[in-house]
Amino acid sequence: MEKGSLLYEGKAKKLYKTNDSSVLWVEYKDEATAFNGEKKEKVSGKGSLTNIISSELFAYLRRQGVQSHFIEQVSPTEQLIKPLSMIPLEVVVRFVAAGSLSKRLGIPEGEIFPQPIIEFYYKNDELGDPLLTEDHLEYLELLSPKEYAKVKVEAIIIFKYLQKLCDQSGLQLIDGKLEFGRTEDGSIMLGDEISPDTCRFWRKGTKERLDKDVFRLGTGDMVSVYEEFYQTIKGVSAHV
Amino acid sequence: MEKGSLLYEGKAKKLYKTNDSSVLWVEYKDEATAFNGEKKEKVSGKGSLTNIISSELFAYLRRQGVQSHFIEQVSPTEQLIKPLSMIPLEVVVRFVAAGSLSKRLGIPEGEIFPQPIIEFYYKNDELGDPLLTEDHLEYLELLSPKEYAKVKVEAIIIFKYLQKLCDQSGLQLIDGKLEFGRTEDGSIMLGDEISPDTCRFWRKGTKERLDKDVFRLGTGDMVSVYEEFYQTIKGVSAHV
Repeated sequence: MEKGSLLYEGKAKKLYKTNDSSVLWVEYKDEATAFNGEKKEKVSGKGSLTNIISSELFAYLRRQGVQSHFIEQVSPTEQLIKPLSMIPLEVVVRFVAAGSLSKRLGIPEGEIFPQPIIEFYYKNDELGDPLLTEDHLEYLELLSPKEYAKVKVEAIIIFKYLQKLCDQSGLQLIDGKLEFGRTEDGSIMLGDEISPDTCRFWRKGTKERLDKDVFRLGTGDMVSVYEEFYQTIKGVSAHV
Repeated sequence: MEKGSLLYEGKAKKLYKTNDSSVLWVEYKDEATAFNGEKKEKVSGKGSLTNIISSELFAYLRRQGVQSHFIEQVSPTEQLIKPLSMIPLEVVVRFVAAGSLSKRLGIPEGEIFPQPIIEFYYKNDELGDPLLTEDHLEYLELLSPKEYAKVKVEAIIIFKYLQKLCDQSGLQLIDGKLEFGRTEDGSIMLGDEISPDTCRFWRKGTKERLDKDVFRLGTGDMVSVYEEFYQTIKGVSAHV
């Protein structure tokens, strides 16, 4: 497999062609951003940790039967993926109140939801990633009603598997964000990344954060916290 | 029927007891507010116009079979209503893009939706009336899933009747807000008010506004515009 020309550069990743049209080459960058890009820093070692963790979690999900764009990790900062036509949506699943939802609805951080809450946000920097309802999704032609139902079920399944892994690692999964895309035949598949950059993880029984909130809030060193997260789940994921 | 003591004073109305516990007395105030109360003015004659229009529209809806809290108009600024335990929700139905939705999702004002879009906002001044999804509604125990489905259908039916009235009056119904409450037996009923304070009406074929946007945008005299709206629908509503 040969790394080809740069296709796209986002906030946290670079995407390259390969000599095989059914495979893309992703490089995770040492770039940390928060608050829709308002806070931005170069963080040495972040790209390799998010790549390693995301590869680990996609591989774990694959063993549970969840298909995603992930093929394999090829270097500390790189992985191979299947090309997807990404849907500009952030699918957020929340088990415990935190972050923007706590602020928006006045729910104290740490409050456990009796059932997970799913939200869809429109990935649109200019509009500030607004929350969408089912009617908005349909009007914007982002998901058909059938696809909406399918993505909701798929997101819950994925997070239930991640919750199980966390639970057995002494962690509490608070919430997380998924992104989906369409394959060539039009079916919907999990893409993007899963890591402490896109999910919140707390040590069970405490609110010790092993996720990007340490960067958002400026309360800890991102790289050591992500490393700690990785060490916590690494041994466990093979046996769940 | 005798007007009793003041029960509650809101931005636009005062609510009084009567000597009959199954009847409340509402007084519409000469107070105009916009942008969650940031813009606020005394507007002479507004209370009587919104009362007269709301009475006319509730009576029109009653003739179509839609029950509401409205009993009868008793003076230019007053009407009698049934007591409801109000649900802190604004149920918004949109036929044409305008206002906050246009801004939030970047949809040009005037774009017609192939199907009406329903949105639920949490009536909470402190939180700035945030948009809610179905999951939020259920978690906040504002509506059960069954009630959610019922309110959606009811809101669409109500606005279809209002749309018919507008259509025959040479007006275009752009969007509008309803509020619902629970009766003593727990069933859900339409409450609050329906007027150019709570809906957007444009002259057909133009974007001439006969609603609160003239106050929001400072482009016209609220009282003469509301009077014009009333004169436009008055003769028509009895015959639709």
